[in-house]
Amino acid sequence: VSEHGPHGLVAALKTIVGDDGVLVETHDIQPFRGDIGLTAADTDLIVVRPRSTDALSAIVKVCGMHGVAITPRGGGSGFCGGAVPSATGLNVVVSFERMRRIRAVDTVNDVLVVEAGCTLHDAQEAAKSAGRLLGVDHGGAGSSQIGGNLGTNAGGNNVLRYGMARDQVLGLEVVLADGSVISRLSPLRKSNVGYDLKQMFLGSEGTLGLITAATLRLRPAPVKRATACLAVESPEQALRFLDQGKLAFGESISAFELMSGAAVALHMKHAREDAWPGGEAVPWLILLEADSASSYFDLDAALTDLLDRTFESGLVKGGTVASSEAQRFKFWRIREGIASAMVATPGCLKSDTAVPISQIPQFIFDAGAAVKTLAPGCVPAPFGHLGDGNIHFNVLPPMGEPPELFQSKWKLIQAAIATVSLSLDGTVSAEHGIGLTKKAAMAEMMGPVEMHLMRSLKRAWDPYDTLNQGKLFE
Amino acid sequence: VSEHGPHGLVAALKTIVGDDGVLVETHDIQPFRGDIGLTAADTDLIVVRPRSTDALSAIVKVCGMHGVAITPRGGGSGFCGGAVPSATGLNVVVSFERMRRIRAVDTVNDVLVVEAGCTLHDAQEAAKSAGRLLGVDHGGAGSSQIGGNLGTNAGGNNVLRYGMARDQVLGLEVVLADGSVISRLSPLRKSNVGYDLKQMFLGSEGTLGLITAATLRLRPAPVKRATACLAVESPEQALRFLDQGKLAFGESISAFELMSGAAVALHMKHAREDAWPGGEAVPWLILLEADSASSYFDLDAALTDLLDRTFESGLVKGGTVASSEAQRFKFWRIREGIASAMVATPGCLKSDTAVPISQIPQFIFDAGAAVKTLAPGCVPAPFGHLGDGNIHFNVLPPMGEPPELFQSKWKLIQAAIATVSLSLDGTVSAEHGIGLTKKAAMAEMMGPVEMHLMRSLKRAWDPYDTLNQGKLFE
Repeated sequence: VSEHGPHGLVAALKTIVGDDGVLVETHDIQPFRGDIGLTAADTDLIVVRPRSTDALSAIVKVCGMHGVAITPRGGGSGFCGGAVPSATGLNVVVSFERMRRIRAVDTVNDVLVVEAGCTLHDAQEAAKSAGRLLGVDHGGAGSSQIGGNLGTNAGGNNVLRYGMARDQVLGLEVVLADGSVISRLSPLRKSNVGYDLKQMFLGSEGTLGLITAATLRLRPAPVKRATACLAVESPEQALRFLDQGKLAFGESISAFELMSGAAVALHMKHAREDAWPGGEAVPWLILLEADSASSYFDLDAALTDLLDRTFESGLVKGGTVASSEAQRFKFWRIREGIASAMVATPGCLKSDTAVPISQIPQFIFDAGAAVKTLAPGCVPAPFGHLGDGNIHFNVLPPMGEPPELFQSKWKLIQAAIATVSLSLDGTVSAEHGIGLTKKAAMAEMMGPVEMHLMRSLKRAWDPYDTLNQGKLFE
Repeated sequence: VSEHGPHGLVAALKTIVGDDGVLVETHDIQPFRGDIGLTAADTDLIVVRPRSTDALSAIVKVCGMHGVAITPRGGGSGFCGGAVPSATGLNVVVSFERMRRIRAVDTVNDVLVVEAGCTLHDAQEAAKSAGRLLGVDHGGAGSSQIGGNLGTNAGGNNVLRYGMARDQVLGLEVVLADGSVISRLSPLRKSNVGYDLKQMFLGSEGTLGLITAATLRLRPAPVKRATACLAVESPEQALRFLDQGKLAFGESISAFELMSGAAVALHMKHAREDAWPGGEAVPWLILLEADSASSYFDLDAALTDLLDRTFESGLVKGGTVASSEAQRFKFWRIREGIASAMVATPGCLKSDTAVPISQIPQFIFDAGAAVKTLAPGCVPAPFGHLGDGNIHFNVLPPMGEPPELFQSKWKLIQAAIATVSLSLDGTVSAEHGIGLTKKAAMAEMMGPVEMHLMRSLKRAWDPYDTLNQGKLFE
């Protein structure tokens, strides 16, 4: 035990969380070394699994006394190394797997009070059982935890309608760097009392405090839904169609996804599908979904009218309206299948940037030119959330070339995509965050003034750099 | 000139903004001494009126060199003394009246880029002209400026649907305490790049930075609207009716206001109206409004069905549906007329707290008991935004008593209302902010841990306490 850090640390942690709450054996701690994007092979670490906020507060105090860094860990489904233990020495990794209670489902105030370790999926289901909707959904719902979703301000498919994870939060419970606890979980809708401190923990990737529970806003569950999968000839046309869609549906469009032909083709190959979903082979697919919690909103009529007009004008070239829940799932399987197919494709480069939606056509054009210059023969396969400007400009390696060769150029290509995004008033990270992998890109985007504000805030709230050391910036 | 501060300050300010940009004469500076809630009679001050962000940056640097405090000022329509110059010595008051440009109205990205000195009304009109809606509206729209609305995170009538002022903001331009400038005005919808710094300026009442411009989210303009003024017997019944309303309208309820009989009666007396708007004399009125940007949402049918059900069950006792825009304005005149009548009533106590909406009946009951104990014979006249928990528990002085006597008890009564609010998991300030008048209440509510975080943030970003000295906390 003594090789796992300062004398007495493991014993002190066991006193707080019990013997089985502390993991130190190599094979036990192996799964806690990283996330999807990055893993640290050889960091010295202790995993601790508290069951309560008070226990976590005690853990943080003990770590403070021993001068040991703390790495918070959710579902481990991040892409940027945000859950990778610090390389500077021994780490205590805090796993929230034992803090997964749903503390309250309140349909008068329309909130869910949920602990950090609850998966997004479980929180969604709790909302659903109460006839409500939680406004965040993404491909990692099954494994990602609420704490991680809030710590990274997760995005996903419904940002257009409901905003980011941040926008669902009415209150937080947080353990600070010195072990003190803020518990402000009231389902209040309105409170202007000085600085809105919770906003700084949201998206801070655990560098300012450890989120242990949250009060999340619930929406009325949709009782009507309209979904269509449509083919258009270009991103410009997709944007024009979105404009028409807003006229028909107002604010009730909940998803507007764009998929390139290359991305769809990859999915079809991977899933062994052969019927092109957009009808004819038109290069871009749109997945449009609108929903309403009122039965007085005639979404079907709105969709029929929209499609009549846009087919007639030639804006939409083909497509299908979902006439059943099964068909709707089929459309969404294409969208989610693209992500899975890319994970399964060796050498496939993933990216996560966003631009103002007016700039999406230019972004796709410029990024395509940039990556083809750096890696001739590579295949851009962009797809993502057109409705909020977040197109994942993913790229497949050149055919017939070893993927390792392409992989060796990843950093260069990522940087080129980021540069294109910044040149169009965009961001280097739309929804995946910064973690370890995007620190340089963030510094470039934010510039010295904003970086200074961030660093000075970190120093003010975590003066000994205890919490998730080395993430966001040095 | 020399009595107005350190040698050369006025001259230096004139070099930046021109002679007519600086006011020092007693009668010129008189209007800049306070807001609706509070005025400081004898502070030594210089008023400076920049035309650009660069000019303001230069002003802040000059003030820094002279060690002079800066008080930002919007429309002066606050209630809490947030615009009152600091009492500690000479102040430079920055008036944004010459920075009122609308820099862009962008209907592709659905944003408005607007300077801090633009009135809320002018920003609303710019949105309207483009077929869009700005999601903030309140009684002070004509005089309050965007900078003040954002600096105080204003609320108002549509929070239920569109959120607070904070929720409209996609980007900010800010001058910091050392004169450096952050300009992040991209209409990006998604960006996860470290701490979301803009959140700290929103609601900070000018203590961390001076907002000079903002990129505000626009919504599609409503094309349909349903409005009703209804009578119910109690706040409990109003809450039950809101539940029914959510079933009928989903998320499209844009206002749900509650007015006590005492508040309505005061308005009727003041406006010399005699037809009781709710039909029979039932003690509580509801103003319900729903709107939609889609013509496929049959709001009229939803309202008819809702009223059929709730009249039949006896939940709603009487009322009228607005059948024209004129009738709708008439309903809103009641709501806004209450506020005006109270301003015109000597001794009328105003308050601004909020509780979780489930607690509103208890809050009204407990606050009523508390104020009647402190001032027997006083007349509670609560009204406000039931839909978001923010009932203004205003109180009329006892009949036949000099209002000054009641006024001498204001502080005690305010404190009692705040105590009731806190006992129900509520807040001491819902939408009016803290300024000078609510500092003690805020410290009580937040407690030492959160106050420490706020103070340490202020020290980190404004180490010489230059910006809006003495507001929020000492």
